[in-house]
Amino acid sequence: MAGLAAIDLADQLALADSLADAAGAVIRRYFRSKIAVDDKADASPVTIADREAEAAMRRLIEARVPAHGILGEEYGEARIGADWVWVLDPIDGTKSFISGVPLFGTLIALLHQGVPVLGVIDQPISGERWRGSAGAPTTLNGAPIRTRPCGDIATASLFATAPDMFAGSDAVAFRRLQSRVKLSRFGSDCYAYGLVAAGFIDCVVEACLKPYDYCAMGPIIEGAGGKTSDWQGKPLGLASDGRVVCAGDPALHETILTVLDS
Amino acid sequence: MAGLAAIDLADQLALADSLADAAGAVIRRYFRSKIAVDDKADASPVTIADREAEAAMRRLIEARVPAHGILGEEYGEARIGADWVWVLDPIDGTKSFISGVPLFGTLIALLHQGVPVLGVIDQPISGERWRGSAGAPTTLNGAPIRTRPCGDIATASLFATAPDMFAGSDAVAFRRLQSRVKLSRFGSDCYAYGLVAAGFIDCVVEACLKPYDYCAMGPIIEGAGGKTSDWQGKPLGLASDGRVVCAGDPALHETILTVLDS
Repeated sequence: MAGLAAIDLADQLALADSLADAAGAVIRRYFRSKIAVDDKADASPVTIADREAEAAMRRLIEARVPAHGILGEEYGEARIGADWVWVLDPIDGTKSFISGVPLFGTLIALLHQGVPVLGVIDQPISGERWRGSAGAPTTLNGAPIRTRPCGDIATASLFATAPDMFAGSDAVAFRRLQSRVKLSRFGSDCYAYGLVAAGFIDCVVEACLKPYDYCAMGPIIEGAGGKTSDWQGKPLGLASDGRVVCAGDPALHETILTVLDS
Repeated sequence: MAGLAAIDLADQLALADSLADAAGAVIRRYFRSKIAVDDKADASPVTIADREAEAAMRRLIEARVPAHGILGEEYGEARIGADWVWVLDPIDGTKSFISGVPLFGTLIALLHQGVPVLGVIDQPISGERWRGSAGAPTTLNGAPIRTRPCGDIATASLFATAPDMFAGSDAVAFRRLQSRVKLSRFGSDCYAYGLVAAGFIDCVVEACLKPYDYCAMGPIIEGAGGKTSDWQGKPLGLASDGRVVCAGDPALHETILTVLDS
């Protein structure tokens, strides 16, 4: 990503902040209120807040950078072949959202020619916003953050959203990984990636993710000193298979790939 | 518990608030700071914050109600045969605490002749405090709350702290229960009981709990309209076996007992 550091992303970061502000205003209105919840085909709950928050973000993109593409969880794609594509998940962690748990988040990524160059995780209830962009240090509420070193996998803390996200041989590989770490924990959604970036936990390993679940994570984690990839070690992009390894210490990332593959 | 409603618990509730305030002040000082973490015999991490927070609560009890007994997670028991016994868990969810996840809580229970009559769950980062006491409505930050009805287990949301808290036949029973509900979720510690009390989720089923993990829950859940017991349906007390069923709707509680036992 050496060349990308030369791109000035200040305007895009400002727009990403506006998107997160707009989504957060919608989400705070609905969190812990009694609203209708229906089921999508994949059985994940989706709420009115989800749709309204994405619509608010799309309106801002259409108004300010109408040539940019958009891929959103709720309303699909527009101009997906553009040089710049925004990838939006208004509420990552809808199960947490509908359960009143403030660990969901709004995920915003910007891809340049297919490469994620900007990522935002926004938790609108706790008021925490992680921002990462190519060539700049990742911040949490404006303050630079760093991942922590973890030279020995036996001391690592591992997070994932749910044990049932792993099927077949993936489940076997994940259990093998669990047996090697010190502490594993479920139920955190996107918030766990923020915890890796800020140096409070060591790694997140997941499967069955969609591009809008993971595209924001690379810029955030890598700008804090960590590493993300798919389970084969390949960079994450729109065409990834949804299996993600994220580690605060690049050496731990390498070890995790080996354990998953062994 | 009909007779208990006649006991005036106002002084005890005020003291419980002081205990939670004192614990919270310690905990906020240490949350997300880099402190030493050691391992107890049972491998659950315990922090300096845990010990200092319990010490602060015990000092207040010794000063204000020196005849009352105390059972605490960190410093054991004192005058455990007294009519009134305080049961304290300074940080329930130490794994969440050390990972930077604000779903841990301070748990405070007061037992009268062995029966839990007062309970507090305090989350000192989000600033949420649940209070329950025999004969009075449960409150969240001072506002009365109610559980929600759940007449059909197929629509229920179920929480538990971790899948590995269930061993042997308990694990089989829990998986059977998971297969009957709409949504199950891990990683919430004591916070999940607060979500049941406030009507955002329907039930929590756990195992391997200690008295300081569950004694606060009965007064909180029952004062909000729900029901708690062990897996056999017996009331929770110091001698319970650590397996807990908590449901917002008493009819759902009954159904869960049947599913666990079938």
